[in-house]
Amino acid sequence: MGIYMNNGATTWPKPECVARAMADFLTGRGANLARGSASERDMGTLDLVFTCRERLASFFGGWEDDPRYVNFTANVTESLNVVFKGYLKPGMKVLTSSMEHNAVIRPLRRLEAGGVSVEVLPCDGEGFLHPSTLAKALKESDVSLVALSHCSNVCGTVQDLEALAAVCREAAVPLVADCAQTAGILPLDAEKLGLAALCFTGHKGLFGPQGIGGILWKPDFAEKTAWFVEGGTGSYSHLELQPDTMPDKFEAGTPNLPGIAGLLAALDWIEETGIENIRRREESLGALLLEGLLSLPGVQLSGRKSMDGRLPVFAVNFEGRDNGILAARLSDEWGIETRPGLHCAPLAHKTLGTFPGGALRLSPGWFTTVDEVRKTVDALKAVLAS
Amino acid sequence: MGIYMNNGATTWPKPECVARAMADFLTGRGANLARGSASERDMGTLDLVFTCRERLASFFGGWEDDPRYVNFTANVTESLNVVFKGYLKPGMKVLTSSMEHNAVIRPLRRLEAGGVSVEVLPCDGEGFLHPSTLAKALKESDVSLVALSHCSNVCGTVQDLEALAAVCREAAVPLVADCAQTAGILPLDAEKLGLAALCFTGHKGLFGPQGIGGILWKPDFAEKTAWFVEGGTGSYSHLELQPDTMPDKFEAGTPNLPGIAGLLAALDWIEETGIENIRRREESLGALLLEGLLSLPGVQLSGRKSMDGRLPVFAVNFEGRDNGILAARLSDEWGIETRPGLHCAPLAHKTLGTFPGGALRLSPGWFTTVDEVRKTVDALKAVLAS
Repeated sequence: MGIYMNNGATTWPKPECVARAMADFLTGRGANLARGSASERDMGTLDLVFTCRERLASFFGGWEDDPRYVNFTANVTESLNVVFKGYLKPGMKVLTSSMEHNAVIRPLRRLEAGGVSVEVLPCDGEGFLHPSTLAKALKESDVSLVALSHCSNVCGTVQDLEALAAVCREAAVPLVADCAQTAGILPLDAEKLGLAALCFTGHKGLFGPQGIGGILWKPDFAEKTAWFVEGGTGSYSHLELQPDTMPDKFEAGTPNLPGIAGLLAALDWIEETGIENIRRREESLGALLLEGLLSLPGVQLSGRKSMDGRLPVFAVNFEGRDNGILAARLSDEWGIETRPGLHCAPLAHKTLGTFPGGALRLSPGWFTTVDEVRKTVDALKAVLAS
Repeated sequence: MGIYMNNGATTWPKPECVARAMADFLTGRGANLARGSASERDMGTLDLVFTCRERLASFFGGWEDDPRYVNFTANVTESLNVVFKGYLKPGMKVLTSSMEHNAVIRPLRRLEAGGVSVEVLPCDGEGFLHPSTLAKALKESDVSLVALSHCSNVCGTVQDLEALAAVCREAAVPLVADCAQTAGILPLDAEKLGLAALCFTGHKGLFGPQGIGGILWKPDFAEKTAWFVEGGTGSYSHLELQPDTMPDKFEAGTPNLPGIAGLLAALDWIEETGIENIRRREESLGALLLEGLLSLPGVQLSGRKSMDGRLPVFAVNFEGRDNGILAARLSDEWGIETRPGLHCAPLAHKTLGTFPGGALRLSPGWFTTVDEVRKTVDALKAVLAS
């Protein structure tokens, strides 16, 4: 078997309970949501979906833990599109950072073409957005929204979300957090931070399947945001317009029920395992990999050189070597899976000085072993020597 | 075990291969799409997704069977939103029918509020849209789009799509077909019909899991349609705008890979079983149920009184009885799952004369047995007698 160093793209393997819960749902339960006769199976599906909303609300410190303000989407990208395209109107201004993923940048650039003003705040060479930079920008113009990634998918830099959120609260400007890389790994408290929307995906740190993500809303922000996907909700069926009640406002059509079943099982697993234990283990694996990477000849590591202020997502280049070829050789010769290139984040690579070539990204996870980390470093050393 | 008469909401059970394929993907393969190092697992995911597009293109008679013009969405509702919201601009006019589901009506009503003109063409008392009605409307004003459901989710009425599509081709107006109820049950040939977009869901007649659906596009129509969800595509990563190449234009973020694996397994199962065999079996079960329903005292059946021009989706009312109470009693006392109410289709119920009370919907499927159909009729008889 190979070595999986691409948990930044999707965590793998998943806890065994995830696939089991999905198969159990499909084979044993399988009823659609709110589109039946209130049979036992129908109630089972209602309970599954409501319980998953409740658990997510509590997990992310939802506003008054109200499960109605948790929406399911296909992934964090859709979550961000729902928020941006529903909230931002021509004439409004949005601030974001120079470390964003295309999931943030591409919808914003589209809105920009339609008359929304987009300002990209510069981050430092390690990828940090300084709270003072944000505060200054908020003072200099009339800003309607701030949208920031909690952690870089390229180099693992974790923003000081507490400080940045405090700046937004102070300025009374809603803050949308892209928690793609941190949900399930770092504790999050949306209400305490004052987040307008916390966007997450299920298949990374939450260890769920691909195809399920969501939004945790601040209630009044959800009210101010316009609809996105509209259609049958299994509710208010006499209305020819999408209802405004939550969570139906932002969900239409048959939901990804196996995905929700898988995500709920994954949340159970995280709770049993302990988010602190997950974090500590990932940090210690990260420290080991970091040490190994920094020992390699000609290494250029993007972002933090220590484990402080980062997650174990490492972007490296080696002098005179093409990161794509390195990735291919690691994969072909050693069975080590990484991700080279631009990681759907050209702006971040520009900030880190690695555009357009990108970098080789290595991201261990909970299921990575110490031995696998050592073998990865040894393999890189061998590849670099030949 | 109970009797499942709610296949109109979602087919159940699913073929065993569906849950197995999803679990196999998650546990055995699990690599993300186009976000790795071209490892064997990465190539496996690429192959899975591409193969599923190819199979769908061929299954639906895609334009030149080109798999790039098959997009995945969460469900047919999202598919319709992508098409309508990307194509229709203020000042344009869209025609639809009075038998539509809220998946068609709700996004159109929203667009109407933004300046799109929406005309709802009247259907007859059985729910049929006469091609002459469509032809007349197309002649009377400048129409940009026609959007029609192939089959009513309320009463099973199947439109004469060949004739309606011919009218649209004649007028050179693009036709979008909502094939939620027919994909997998009736043969479809998008290119022959000249469909601009064929919208489908995976979890009904295609026997796949909930959470996966899609669009099969006519290439030039896809080009004229604007983006919907935008973000990382694992392609053209240097661009800060969504690429225009297909299929990436309409897909962003990590896709529902377990859902695609499940759908592909379901397509295999349909091919092995034979779409004609499925259709014949459903028709014969339908005929038996129809005969039984029509024998019940005080029955009022919506739509066709024969199996001609319909699928086995039956909407009934019984004089002086509340359809919600009938559904609850069938479920509680007999373990028979149906769906009462409005079925997310208020307009269709208005057309059929069953608004606002709705109807009791019974929809058998491939896995329904003759014995279950008989028991259902007997149970209804007993409930009506007490």
